[in-house]
Amino acid sequence: MSHKSFLASLLVATSALVSNSPASADQAPSPSPYDTVDPMIGTGGEGHTFPGAVAPFGMVQLSPDTDTTCTVRSCYGHAAGYRYDDPTIQGFSHTHFSGAGHSDLGDFLIMPVSGDKVLLDPGSGDDPSSGYRSRYSHASEVAQPGYYAVTLSDYDVRAELTAGTRVGVHRYTFPAGKAAHLVLDLRTSLYNYPGKVLWSTIRLRDDRTITGCRQTRGWAPDRILCFAMRFSQPLAGHLFENTEENITYKGFQGPGRGSDAVAYRQGRQIVARLDFGQLAKPLEVKVALSSVDEAGALGNLASEPGDFDTIRAATRACWQKALGVIEIDAPRDTRVNLYTALYHTLLAPSVAGDADGRYRGPDNQVHKADGFAFRSTFSLWDTFRAEQPLLTLIQPASVNAEIINSLLASQQDSPFGILPVWQFQGRETWTMIGYHAVPVIADAYLKGIGGFDANKALDAMVASATYAPYGDLGDYMKLGYVPIDKEPEAASKTVEYAFDDWTIARMAQKMGRKDVAARFFKRAGYWRNTFDPKTGFVRAKKSDGQFRTPFDPTAINYGSDYTEGNAWQYSWFVPQDQAALFKAMGGDKAAVAKLDAMFDYDNSKLDYSHAEDISGLIGQYIHGNEPSHHVAYLYDYVGAPWKTQKRLTQIVDSQYKPTPDGLSGNDDLGQMSAWLVFTGLGFYPVTPGSLQYVIGRPFVDHAVLHLPNGKQFIVIADGLDKAHPYVGSVTLDGRPLQRSYITHGEIMAGGTLHFTMQAKPDKHWATNAASRPYSMSTAASQ
Amino acid sequence: MSHKSFLASLLVATSALVSNSPASADQAPSPSPYDTVDPMIGTGGEGHTFPGAVAPFGMVQLSPDTDTTCTVRSCYGHAAGYRYDDPTIQGFSHTHFSGAGHSDLGDFLIMPVSGDKVLLDPGSGDDPSSGYRSRYSHASEVAQPGYYAVTLSDYDVRAELTAGTRVGVHRYTFPAGKAAHLVLDLRTSLYNYPGKVLWSTIRLRDDRTITGCRQTRGWAPDRILCFAMRFSQPLAGHLFENTEENITYKGFQGPGRGSDAVAYRQGRQIVARLDFGQLAKPLEVKVALSSVDEAGALGNLASEPGDFDTIRAATRACWQKALGVIEIDAPRDTRVNLYTALYHTLLAPSVAGDADGRYRGPDNQVHKADGFAFRSTFSLWDTFRAEQPLLTLIQPASVNAEIINSLLASQQDSPFGILPVWQFQGRETWTMIGYHAVPVIADAYLKGIGGFDANKALDAMVASATYAPYGDLGDYMKLGYVPIDKEPEAASKTVEYAFDDWTIARMAQKMGRKDVAARFFKRAGYWRNTFDPKTGFVRAKKSDGQFRTPFDPTAINYGSDYTEGNAWQYSWFVPQDQAALFKAMGGDKAAVAKLDAMFDYDNSKLDYSHAEDISGLIGQYIHGNEPSHHVAYLYDYVGAPWKTQKRLTQIVDSQYKPTPDGLSGNDDLGQMSAWLVFTGLGFYPVTPGSLQYVIGRPFVDHAVLHLPNGKQFIVIADGLDKAHPYVGSVTLDGRPLQRSYITHGEIMAGGTLHFTMQAKPDKHWATNAASRPYSMSTAASQ
Repeated sequence: MSHKSFLASLLVATSALVSNSPASADQAPSPSPYDTVDPMIGTGGEGHTFPGAVAPFGMVQLSPDTDTTCTVRSCYGHAAGYRYDDPTIQGFSHTHFSGAGHSDLGDFLIMPVSGDKVLLDPGSGDDPSSGYRSRYSHASEVAQPGYYAVTLSDYDVRAELTAGTRVGVHRYTFPAGKAAHLVLDLRTSLYNYPGKVLWSTIRLRDDRTITGCRQTRGWAPDRILCFAMRFSQPLAGHLFENTEENITYKGFQGPGRGSDAVAYRQGRQIVARLDFGQLAKPLEVKVALSSVDEAGALGNLASEPGDFDTIRAATRACWQKALGVIEIDAPRDTRVNLYTALYHTLLAPSVAGDADGRYRGPDNQVHKADGFAFRSTFSLWDTFRAEQPLLTLIQPASVNAEIINSLLASQQDSPFGILPVWQFQGRETWTMIGYHAVPVIADAYLKGIGGFDANKALDAMVASATYAPYGDLGDYMKLGYVPIDKEPEAASKTVEYAFDDWTIARMAQKMGRKDVAARFFKRAGYWRNTFDPKTGFVRAKKSDGQFRTPFDPTAINYGSDYTEGNAWQYSWFVPQDQAALFKAMGGDKAAVAKLDAMFDYDNSKLDYSHAEDISGLIGQYIHGNEPSHHVAYLYDYVGAPWKTQKRLTQIVDSQYKPTPDGLSGNDDLGQMSAWLVFTGLGFYPVTPGSLQYVIGRPFVDHAVLHLPNGKQFIVIADGLDKAHPYVGSVTLDGRPLQRSYITHGEIMAGGTLHFTMQAKPDKHWATNAASRPYSMSTAASQ
Repeated sequence: MSHKSFLASLLVATSALVSNSPASADQAPSPSPYDTVDPMIGTGGEGHTFPGAVAPFGMVQLSPDTDTTCTVRSCYGHAAGYRYDDPTIQGFSHTHFSGAGHSDLGDFLIMPVSGDKVLLDPGSGDDPSSGYRSRYSHASEVAQPGYYAVTLSDYDVRAELTAGTRVGVHRYTFPAGKAAHLVLDLRTSLYNYPGKVLWSTIRLRDDRTITGCRQTRGWAPDRILCFAMRFSQPLAGHLFENTEENITYKGFQGPGRGSDAVAYRQGRQIVARLDFGQLAKPLEVKVALSSVDEAGALGNLASEPGDFDTIRAATRACWQKALGVIEIDAPRDTRVNLYTALYHTLLAPSVAGDADGRYRGPDNQVHKADGFAFRSTFSLWDTFRAEQPLLTLIQPASVNAEIINSLLASQQDSPFGILPVWQFQGRETWTMIGYHAVPVIADAYLKGIGGFDANKALDAMVASATYAPYGDLGDYMKLGYVPIDKEPEAASKTVEYAFDDWTIARMAQKMGRKDVAARFFKRAGYWRNTFDPKTGFVRAKKSDGQFRTPFDPTAINYGSDYTEGNAWQYSWFVPQDQAALFKAMGGDKAAVAKLDAMFDYDNSKLDYSHAEDISGLIGQYIHGNEPSHHVAYLYDYVGAPWKTQKRLTQIVDSQYKPTPDGLSGNDDLGQMSAWLVFTGLGFYPVTPGSLQYVIGRPFVDHAVLHLPNGKQFIVIADGLDKAHPYVGSVTLDGRPLQRSYITHGEIMAGGTLHFTMQAKPDKHWATNAASRPYSMSTAASQ
């Protein structure tokens, strides 16, 4: 059954969770949120999502890898291991990023092989019989939250995967009369260049248990991950080999020689063949991970007892609960897109610490989390925008506190004493710019989320914002901007630092730490130092105070004046003070004209194919990457909400589809998806830390948001259809709403946001200054 | 002051510890044991000892390295880092083996540099100014137990080293008016081939503290060692660099760029420059190690508080106590040789676990020792012979129990479930043959040493002796010998396994575990299966039961029929049943003739220069390597004790000198030295587990052995001098002793062994069958 026909079959299913949705009597009830999610979305095109099994925020992402033998360029396309277009599956590995723009993970690849011939190399996709990989058909695939299945046609093996928080479980049904084997390849990973594996070990503990560790030099320079693997049926034989060549010094040989069944093997290129003979029952392989050590992996294995079906049922229940926080009534495609987006927002920051509380920190040392599960996979440059704010609405305060406590623990453990930038499994990658753990913490604090030490948090934020060697903060503090002759991507850094600074000031202000507030409110205005009023663009400035020339606002290059973008995208990033920015641009009209110019830019002559993250273009608006994400909402700040509505329609229609290639860019650990969840509901957190959500237009007929405080926030869009994409009147709890934003307090209080949709734009609603969302420079008057 | 003149100056010193020695009134009192030790002995020639600072059984061996840039061949000569003949010192590193036949360690090399020019590469010995190394003069050296000093003439820096159990302390006196720097080179080690460093890190914790770790692929395939380093004066600046080239994938850069003062650096080739400016006082650098992690190293640093002088004084006191267990009255050179030997026997098995009890085991995982300090550096093929038996006499039972508990912990942690073979820092190297942890444990148990679980120990011993994949034990158990067509060095393995088996049987017998005893007494006879009565040699046999041909009893080659030796050395190794061996050889006369033939062999036409460990030849007797160590004592077993006495005179006179080149072979972690300590006292443990010491001839005039039970065992040699090398009469506690051995019980009971020496051999003493030492086949009649 294809994943599509599988979904179709579920259209007739029912779910208690959506029983309150006002489906008309003549329609079949919509499938449950769980059954609506399609994990195949984003596995083609540029989405970089994975179709495999994962629990909410689970440490294990057990998913098929179609090819780990990529070259540098094609590695980007295989960032999540699986590419929908690939004709073969190489195996199933236990760790994957959901939509990262970088390749790594793919740890501990397992491939079931039936019959007598077991090849220990993967072979190539062009010639599958050259290795252990197998052909497969999409028709045989089933993908659900926490469950994936496929038939490996070369071996006639049905492969099923499920996952708990710290375990993944494989179930392989081998053909009768054929010997069952597994290949466990510790040599492969995503982006698998020579020298990546620094060391690896494999150890037979008993005839049902194998443990091991692997240390890789990947995106994180030195990452250790261990596993404990238990089989439902005993091993009949095994071969552990180190295929490494040209070892300068080998030392002496341990017990066993050549192909003997040695109990332990170490080296840099380890592959194992595991033999089970002919099996009467399917083989289950339960695998736990640990970034700490083998004992941690064994402890994690023990912490989630039960077989495949038990883990699958438990994870299904978790997903049903997690996805049930939003009830959505909308056309089928919109529902599929939205629930899949919601699913994608619930994968990171994932659990990275062991069941016993131990975890590996940014110093690569082992620490113990005090009363919380340590989390990592912080794609903060992406997720501070909408993903993290979404979690404050759809996950318990305790989960949000846990995320913050994990950030703070990482800061304590950091050799630099600063908060994570782009961290996974506790290891820092230094990817992207800014110190965006800061707005995540500030936003949560300002929303009243407790459970962490606010003073300690503010200290950690200030430490991160004042650590001179990071991203040339030294010059930023001295000059008021990052000078491009000292530091690449200086323009982007300056505006992002200034926003982060504003969130520190906001939090300090609320805490009564006035000196900190004053210092960082001042820094929040530093964006002005890199804004060029003459061209109306944010531009990179040199140490001598001059803007760098030549200046081409359309150029996109790595290490240029901007980060994964150009002046067109970055000139809008002053979320703390859009009013001041627009004033600097020449006022409302000039700003609207410039916004329009961005969306309507004729890009037919531009070639950005050299820049990996640049996809999903609408003129110079680039939905496939984050700097553009808030831009459509900015019309609200210049009195043109109807234009926001128009642009959102344009974006949603063109950038999200319920198909494998349905995401226009990397999902970026939920940010692309969080954008859609918010936008679908009709509002978006343009300025985390402002306690406001800026109103766009809803894409759902009706939605109920079950808030963590037990209340419900309801969105209704009367008369919504393709022909009625514009907001007419808006009421909040029955009272007309004359402003283009709602507050976090209003949502958390429960209530109803009622839109009446219409065919034509309402060019009068929420246009005056008082109706506009928060800007620092105008906040006093509001 | 040269180490020689230093020692000379100490001849006038007094020590309470020797105040009881019967020095004649007209002689100056002999210097104390502490002051008699000369750590320079063995640093030239083939001794492979190190001259630096170490506490008894200390984790840290802080010592100068004269060159770590060796080629494969010269690495052997630099196994302990320092070669007396080398003209320069490259730096001071924290770990060294004492007399190993293999090169590794040399961790965390520090070199003080004065002035403005600081080179970060070591340069070559031929051209010292090409790098950070310095010339030095032996005249400037001082070497004492726990203390070493030298003047680095290129920098005019006086360097002093001392060490505690888990810390080393450097003290550098820089010249006035010059800037003080340290180079900390994490790239160097002993035998430093490309690719050896798998990973390393360095971290600035505060301006007086640096931590880091290094993972190497050396003699132990994956060894992790961390350090914590504290400076007595603050850093004024620092540079952490990774000089690695051709990195396939670099990832993103952390805070700081290029030569900025970054707080953390990781990679495979790290070197640091540490700047202190001009100093008014000497700089002290206190360094703790840990095989666990940086927290372990910091904990170890804190566990031994105090400055250079404090640590030096504490360690001096430890050495005075440890060396004071034997009071020796003998000619100066003999005293120097014997106390230096005693010193060398007190270095391993060294502490490898942290102060908090954590340690890294053979599985490379972190464990916690329950109530004992985990020890490692088990050179068991060497040390089971005399080093470990010596420790049962000169160290408390608790130390011996700790060694055994460490062996048992290692067995529990081993992926193979077997006892250590050649292990250091908890990591197994699989060097040499046999399972000689077994006789170490059995010998201690049979001597009544408690403090460990005997049943658990016996189980571990049986597990090690029956693990089929190790050293072809599978075939050994099936065939009664190791077949040479399946396993190299089969002849040596068979005889050594058989001896180890006998010790299992002895221990099991005492414990009443009769089935184990019977099984292993049987195996103790397996040496017969590899003995060729026709040639009178132990020979390698094939699976088909035929001895391998051609057979050359003088051939020495790696991976041949024998281990670091030939038929001449190995044909004597049946310590459990020398009587049966000699019977098989044709009886007493034939055996004496063969022993004489061995010593008197004309080796002038043999070239063993290709075999590293073959040195100290007397005919085919090779004192520089262990298989020969018991052979001189074997005349006692065939009724010719006077020939033992003659050979011992020959050996001691030719193989030990109080000079840097004074050891004829690798000290092998104390075995060469333990041989001399026993032999000097007049007896030797030919058969650990027999509870007997075979009498040779004394080389001391008078010695008092302070036993761990508080009693004293006294050795007197009346009339001993060069002209009177033979034993005349022997009494034990005043009663004539008519046998050529004493028992462990007799020693532990205290008392006096009184030799009267004479010029000519006594060919009648202890010649009859009843007077001979233990042999399994004749034991019933004794």
